[in-house]
Order: sequence, then structure tokens, then C-alpha cells
Amino acid sequence: MSMNLTEDERWMELALRLAEAARGQTSPNPLVGAVVVKDGQLLGSGAHLKAGTPHAEVHALEQAGKSAKGSTLYVTLEPCNHYGRTPPCTERTISSGVRRVVVGSTDPDPLVSGKGVQRLREAGLSVKTGVLADRCTRLNEAYFHHRRTGFPFVTLKAAVTLDGKTATSDGDSRWVTGEAAREEVHRLRHQYDAVLVGSGTALHDRPQLTVRLPGGGKNPLRVVVDSRLRMPLNSPLADVESASTWVFCTDEADSGREAALTARGVRVYRTGAGPRVKLESVFRRLGREGIVSVLTESGGELNASLLREGWVNKVMFFIAPKILGGRDSLTAVGGTTVDQMKDALLLEDVSVDLFGRDICVTGIPRKP
Amino acid sequence: MSMNLTEDERWMELALRLAEAARGQTSPNPLVGAVVVKDGQLLGSGAHLKAGTPHAEVHALEQAGKSAKGSTLYVTLEPCNHYGRTPPCTERTISSGVRRVVVGSTDPDPLVSGKGVQRLREAGLSVKTGVLADRCTRLNEAYFHHRRTGFPFVTLKAAVTLDGKTATSDGDSRWVTGEAAREEVHRLRHQYDAVLVGSGTALHDRPQLTVRLPGGGKNPLRVVVDSRLRMPLNSPLADVESASTWVFCTDEADSGREAALTARGVRVYRTGAGPRVKLESVFRRLGREGIVSVLTESGGELNASLLREGWVNKVMFFIAPKILGGRDSLTAVGGTTVDQMKDALLLEDVSVDLFGRDICVTGIPRKP
Repeated sequence: MSMNLTEDERWMELALRLAEAARGQTSPNPLVGAVVVKDGQLLGSGAHLKAGTPHAEVHALEQAGKSAKGSTLYVTLEPCNHYGRTPPCTERTISSGVRRVVVGSTDPDPLVSGKGVQRLREAGLSVKTGVLADRCTRLNEAYFHHRRTGFPFVTLKAAVTLDGKTATSDGDSRWVTGEAAREEVHRLRHQYDAVLVGSGTALHDRPQLTVRLPGGGKNPLRVVVDSRLRMPLNSPLADVESASTWVFCTDEADSGREAALTARGVRVYRTGAGPRVKLESVFRRLGREGIVSVLTESGGELNASLLREGWVNKVMFFIAPKILGGRDSLTAVGGTTVDQMKDALLLEDVSVDLFGRDICVTGIPRKP
Repeated sequence: MSMNLTEDERWMELALRLAEAARGQTSPNPLVGAVVVKDGQLLGSGAHLKAGTPHAEVHALEQAGKSAKGSTLYVTLEPCNHYGRTPPCTERTISSGVRRVVVGSTDPDPLVSGKGVQRLREAGLSVKTGVLADRCTRLNEAYFHHRRTGFPFVTLKAAVTLDGKTATSDGDSRWVTGEAAREEVHRLRHQYDAVLVGSGTALHDRPQLTVRLPGGGKNPLRVVVDSRLRMPLNSPLADVESASTWVFCTDEADSGREAALTARGVRVYRTGAGPRVKLESVFRRLGREGIVSVLTESGGELNASLLREGWVNKVMFFIAPKILGGRDSLTAVGGTTVDQMKDALLLEDVSVDLFGRDICVTGIPRKP
């Protein structure tokens, strides 16, 4: 724990770390961590582990038992004050005898926002809000975005050489990055609800898009944007034994192919007239089905559409310290010509991380 | 100074910093720093400042005066033992009464290598070599390369977006990177003997390739690889008032254009039959003329040739956290198609630095 944090921030950071540790397993619920503290001593801790199971506060208060009386509860997200799949956490907090509650971020959900804090205060508890608020909000950026807009939070991932190439002109791309970066991508797949590719990637790379991590992991839903249903029936993505696959096509796509994919267990969605699938239909459907976060692992043309239409909430470029060259090699973002360098899409909140010898640049596309 | 250095390393580091501070002003001589120390006290310090002026040891010993008797001399490069433009530093060291000499790197120049150390030992001085040897050698990587091969040390510099673009399809590239990165490029120009571009850059970007730094600086020689002498006479590169320009063309280039450029003070070199200038002729000529280091600021096609033919000793990619897109946008390295991703050119000794919001990746191309 950093020396520069206040006492409240130190405990909130522990709650944050607990919450973060469950990334990938709570969707469509948010990540939440909680700790119970009295006289500077830890009495209970917990994270929300899975939708339908107890909230973080309940785990922590359960652990503290009777000693929770007179304690301080630290929780990364405002406690709920409504009956969902579990009873309201506010009531449990009050009945446990907690004297003070420290909250990270408030809930963007109109059903909850501010009401939990209000209920606790009415019951006579002291409530402090906004402790490590930025970090607590970022923890659930996908959840908050989904609640606010109805659309999933979309992260565009690309793996490029220093000169921006993703593959040779023949499409050979194995491998751009090293093992550590590729393992990180598997970790991301575990953390995201869905992974999205276009038909080109499905056709040429024949990816599985599953999670192969030393310690196991959860496979994401695999989403293929495939206007004309060109995806081969023997594609690993058409094998839904270990992971589900949804394919989005236009109304013009061949119904025989649709039937064949459906027979294999793939869900096929028709999104209207062609020639191209409307991305809005894809993301609207995913959002409605409770898909909170989407990682795109697409090629240059779909990437260009995703960015141009403003669907991308976060960008992650894994840059390998190598140079491919080749004026016909494939690049990470294609699409139509951009007029001027000053029209380039800027990233904000940029961070730079290393995975082995590869560099990962993460940023948020600036709103135009 | 770091806590983990030995006493000898601490003093050598000071000498290194002195040497480094003169980067850009000593060519074709190496960077050298020296300090004189007795009983843990600094008695004199100096750096080699400019070819034809005293060596670092002489400055430091001069400053120490009579107190140099019985002292230790730290010097980043083995002292010379021959008469060049100045008398041998070994004799000056001996006559000053220095008792011990600590050397960073030995000189690759056969005229000097090992002989300085030998002379000092013969005169009864204690000599220790190889202190911070890696850093002392890297300090003069260009100088050592030039002495060893006769060719200048070539650093390929590129400024790219995350998706590897250097300009729009129309060639608009102002600006890829921010102010801090562009200022660093001016610092590099100051530090390198020459800057090299192709005719495409000369034609479309109309660069000056001079040094505009807040504190001033030395302009590099400007080298244009321009097979058919397409460079316009009104190009800023044809104005040699503040910086010299050498143009390399083939024997087929128009002699009228050659005469016009020569009349303006530009040096024109014909390198043989066409259709393209042989890069070997360019670098051989530059090396012979005492050009120790070259910074290339070229476009994708010339970059591809430089890399493919193995002329590049170091690569510096300034990566801006922005995405240009455009399947027809220009990329940093073009050239002919590469067959497989595994044939990409790997970089070694990679370092990552930040300049404002931009990321600079530096590395050494792995020998094939």
C-alpha cells in the first residue's frame, strides 16, 4: 500500500483489489469489493463473485459477524437499496450495527444512484463518498457504460509491428507479438463478455477466440460480423462445444447457410438490408442480451468502421519491436482515406505497459 | 549518482556525463570525458569539446595543475599514445605525476588500441580498464562503427501513428507527433553529422532539416538521395546559407539540373549507372568525407531499402497515441512484400521513452 494514501484510501484500495480480482466472473453485475474495519483492524472482506450470489458487503459483514457492530464498512460501489436477486445491502449494513460507511463510486443505475447513501444516512450512519472515486469508477467502466447507454463497452485490440503492420499481404500474422502479450490477450478474453471479429478474420485466420490460460478461464461469447454468411461451417467458431457463437448477417444472406450454422448450434441474427451489417444493430442486440463488454480482434477494415462510427470506448495496441515492411502488408486500421493528419483520432488517458518485449498502448478515443 | 556504483564507477559516471554533454560538437572525434581525483576529492574535470582542441585528459589535468601529482585520472576512452593534431595524452598524464589511471573503453582505432594503456604501465602507472565499459562504448557507438567499417553509423528515425501511418495518401504529415518529440528530433539533428532523405521527401515535404532549438544548435549536413535530380531548385534544401547539402544522383541525371544546383552551392555526386542510386556509394562517400553519423528521416520506400540492405544500425520510432486509418495512407516502411510475419526484422536492446504524449521505441536491428 502506498505511503501517500490516507487511512480511508488504504482500506478502499484493499476493497478495490478484491473487486478487481473477480474481473471476468461477475457480468452482467459490476465488480464490487468491501472490507469491514474497526480500530484499524480488518474484521471482514469480500468481493462480489457471480451474478445471483451475495454482494460484496454481505460477504464482508458475514465474515465480521457480531464484531461488525460499531465498525466502518468500505465498499467500492454504493450499496444497493432495492430488492433485486438479493435483498438490499443497505438493510444488511444497518442491521449489522455498522456506524460509518465509506463509498468509492456511486451507481449510475437510476434505480440505485444516491438512494443507498440516502437510506444509510436516514438510519443514522455516517457516510463518506468519493474515496478513490476515479479508480472505483474505472473499475466498472464497462458496467457503467452499459447501464448508461444500453450498448456494450467496446475495446478495440490490435497487435502491430512498429510500422503498423498486422499481417503480410497474404494474411500471415503468426505471430506479431510474443508469448506474454498473447497471454494478456487471453486474460482479456476471460475478462470480456464477448469477442468480436469480422468475416475476413473468421475466414483467413480461423481463430478459436477461446481462453487458453495456464490457470484456466471463462470463454467469451464469440461474435462474428459476417454480412453474407461467408464463415465456413468447419471454422473453429462454428464449433460451439466450449464457447457460444453468434453471427450477424444481412437479410440477403443465404438461408441454407443460416440453417446449417443454426443446426450446429450457432445463433444467426439478421440485421436488415445489406450490403453490410449495421454495427448499431449488432451492439444494440448484444446490449439487450446483457453483454456488457466486447473485445474486438478484427482486421483493418472492420476496425476502421468501428472507429469511424464511434463504437470504440477503449483502444489497446500491442506493438512488437519489429519491422515487417511491405507496401502491400496489412495494417491495423484501413478504411477510406483521411484528408489530413490533423484529422487523426486522438487518444486520451494514454498508458503504456510492457508485456515481455512488446509494448501495450491503451487509450480512450477522444470524442469528436 | 546511484548508490549501487563502486567508487571507481561513480567517478567514471561523472566523466561519462561530461563526455555526453558535448554530443554533437566533437565529430569526427569521439566523445571523451575525464576527471582527476585524489583522496576522494575532485581536482579537475573536462570533456573533449571540438576536433583540433585539447583532449579531455588535458583539460582535466590542466585544471588540477600541480595537485595532479599522486592522483587518479578517470577517462572514458583509453588515452591516445600518438601524435595527431595534439601531442599524446599518455605523456601528459605521466608528466603530471598521475599515479593511477582508470579507463572506460579501449579505442577501436588500431593506431591507439591498447597502446595507451601499455605506455602508461611501462611508465609505472597503475591502470584499470573496463570500468562502465558498456556505457563508455555505447557513448561512441557511431565513432567506433565508423572507425571499424569506414561507413557512417546510421539511425533510421520515423514518426508514426499507432496504426503505423506517417502521412495521408496525399502526403500530409503535419504533425504526427507533439512538440516534445519534434524538439527531440531537432536535438538528434544537432547530434548527428548528417541527415538523409529521399527525393520524395524533398519534393513533397519541402523540409529544411535544420536545427531549431530554444538554445541553438549545429545544423547537420543535409544529404538527399535523388536518382534523377528531381529536387526543385527552390527547395529549402537547395538553400545552403545555413547548412550544406549534398545530393546523390545516377549518371543519367540531367547535367543542366546538376549545374543549376552546383551554382547554388549544392554538392552533386554521381554514383554510377541507374536507375537508382546505390546506397553503398552514398555511405562510402559519406564515411570517407568524415561523416561519422547519419540520421535518416526518409519515407517508406527509402526506409525499406535502407533496412533491407542492412545499412541501419539503430532504429527510432516515435509513436503518437493517435489513429489515422486509411488503407491508402502512407506507412513508415514500404518496399516489396514480405512472405511471412516470422521474417520481420527484430530489434534488440529495445528501450522505450516518453516525449510528452508520444512514445519513442529505440532498438538495434538484429543481424540476419
